[in-house]
Amino acid sequence: MTQRPYNFSAGPAALPEAVLSQVAADMLNWQGSGMSVMEMSHRGKHFGEIHAQALADFRELMAVPPEFKVLFMQGGGLGENAIVPMNLSGGGVVDFVDSGIWSKKSAKEAAKYATVRVAAQTEGREGIPDAGAWKLSPDAAYVHICSNETINGLEFFDLPDLKALGCDAPLVADMSSHILTRQIDWSRVGLAFAGAQKNIGPAGLTIVVIREDLLDRALPICPSAFHYKTVAENDSMYNTPPTFAIYVAGLVFKWVKAQGGVAAMGALAQAKSDALYAAIDGSELYSNPIHVSCRSRMNVPFFLSDDALNASFLEGAQAAGLLQLKGHKSVGGMRASLYNAVPAAAVQALTQYMREFESRQG
Amino acid sequence: MTQRPYNFSAGPAALPEAVLSQVAADMLNWQGSGMSVMEMSHRGKHFGEIHAQALADFRELMAVPPEFKVLFMQGGGLGENAIVPMNLSGGGVVDFVDSGIWSKKSAKEAAKYATVRVAAQTEGREGIPDAGAWKLSPDAAYVHICSNETINGLEFFDLPDLKALGCDAPLVADMSSHILTRQIDWSRVGLAFAGAQKNIGPAGLTIVVIREDLLDRALPICPSAFHYKTVAENDSMYNTPPTFAIYVAGLVFKWVKAQGGVAAMGALAQAKSDALYAAIDGSELYSNPIHVSCRSRMNVPFFLSDDALNASFLEGAQAAGLLQLKGHKSVGGMRASLYNAVPAAAVQALTQYMREFESRQG
Repeated sequence: MTQRPYNFSAGPAALPEAVLSQVAADMLNWQGSGMSVMEMSHRGKHFGEIHAQALADFRELMAVPPEFKVLFMQGGGLGENAIVPMNLSGGGVVDFVDSGIWSKKSAKEAAKYATVRVAAQTEGREGIPDAGAWKLSPDAAYVHICSNETINGLEFFDLPDLKALGCDAPLVADMSSHILTRQIDWSRVGLAFAGAQKNIGPAGLTIVVIREDLLDRALPICPSAFHYKTVAENDSMYNTPPTFAIYVAGLVFKWVKAQGGVAAMGALAQAKSDALYAAIDGSELYSNPIHVSCRSRMNVPFFLSDDALNASFLEGAQAAGLLQLKGHKSVGGMRASLYNAVPAAAVQALTQYMREFESRQG
Repeated sequence: MTQRPYNFSAGPAALPEAVLSQVAADMLNWQGSGMSVMEMSHRGKHFGEIHAQALADFRELMAVPPEFKVLFMQGGGLGENAIVPMNLSGGGVVDFVDSGIWSKKSAKEAAKYATVRVAAQTEGREGIPDAGAWKLSPDAAYVHICSNETINGLEFFDLPDLKALGCDAPLVADMSSHILTRQIDWSRVGLAFAGAQKNIGPAGLTIVVIREDLLDRALPICPSAFHYKTVAENDSMYNTPPTFAIYVAGLVFKWVKAQGGVAAMGALAQAKSDALYAAIDGSELYSNPIHVSCRSRMNVPFFLSDDALNASFLEGAQAAGLLQLKGHKSVGGMRASLYNAVPAAAVQALTQYMREFESRQG
């Protein structure tokens, strides 16, 4: 097989080629079981092993402390936008940091179940306001941030230490697009969630990391299948889990470990995003509006100075084997997502193409 | 590759070997796209084609009339147990037919959102009570049946004609385990749902078929990701759909069409289940308690006259290449699920093994 094209999709996104090859090899007969993983009862011995290993590897990679449960769920980030307040708001007040499209969506959904207050607001052009300046509600049931805004391309590199600010509310963080790319100070976190389709595996799996004391606060209207306590008590098998997605995620976890773990992924993310932002900042044609202090290492939106060039930029990129660079419909322009499975060579090829395209504009 | 073992799992369940081979062949490069289906944006051209084709093939196979929407969702049957009453109950009264473990679970979950009444009750030993004898509530928001009880092994071959009984409430049917095995009289149905992991594809995908006039009845607490109107208006892409599961389901739909469609699957289901029930009824060792009028063609539970033989029966079955025959933990014994991807030869091999095992008991 010739070199695969480079895939900059924001999600569902590139997966390691070694993982895809393994999935193909296992397809008709997983480890001599005579079955595809798709064909296995979730209650059987084989899938039990796959599930337990994936869980253990994720906990190890992310150094999840014992007082946290890791849940494999369904519904994605948009599902969690309702599932979190159904479980944690108690119908009271919840604080949000509005940092872009995803946190806005989360706040809008939470308003179905709770009183939403905006503790801070930023578009990232002047950096993320220091947590000491957030207007935290004394009665907040939790404080929600989206620690990487996939569409706008800004990232919270430091999670706020709410306790140090005199706030007892647990921090809820949507880590969908930076999970497995940096270590987390779990002492600052109550709950983190992540849709799988960026750094973990196929769409349809959502990982929730939740401190045990938060498991049993759900409103009576919370569906059992999305009730954290019920999910935890049933080892994420209250309803049939997305077994194949969990298996692929498990292979990705093994791959990340083999690459050197989250630290190695972080160093790679830094190098890749540094190179791409340098190419953008060093050009006349391309721009990125986010303050350097909070530019995302995962999602790099960039805009051509003339939107009329977008179509030919994308066409040339496709021809050069650089796929899925079109920006989100809500903001336009381009976006390169640099998740773990995107190699440094992909960024090299992209920046080279960007320079060539710019030079052709005369 | 040698003959694969036969897989009688109740779900996740056997898939056609031809489908698995295609999935493996497509894994690194779907139709020259340079991507695995897992790596494609759900908003891109390629996945758009996959999604549209799967939808069209499902509608064709099941002859879904134009006034129904077909939604691809997440959460499985247990998720729908809450999603249906959040969308359709209006917080009022809902009627249930209690025919086994799945309808009981559905009723218990619906009680979070509505007043649940049991219109009829059966364990299937004396058949399913005629719909004319059901105690339907004049104010019911809907009437729920599980048209195949996977654990107990009884099937409603005729859907009730509620209108003819003077009941205006829409019928809701959990068709998880018989979808794609028989045609449905959609004039009798308001909403049908089916977890994919039996006759459709990988776990993590749920198909909902809903009459359009029912889309917009949700309670205010219904999460947007599970709000039928929102899902329908966004072509099942409000949240990122389980893209890979939809792709595999699409291949299964094509396979079913190639086999002769639902009519051919139905004839096969009849032949397979007839052969297995005949083997059970013709033996001294095995029994099935369900009335012949409502014995499931999909899930055939059977019990050995002495539970002490269960372990050796299963061990011998495994050695004979007959997998996943252990009954559900709540009822014990054995269960052979005969979904579309289980060939007639599998039932032949099973009945032969059953006879040999019985003869060895002397």
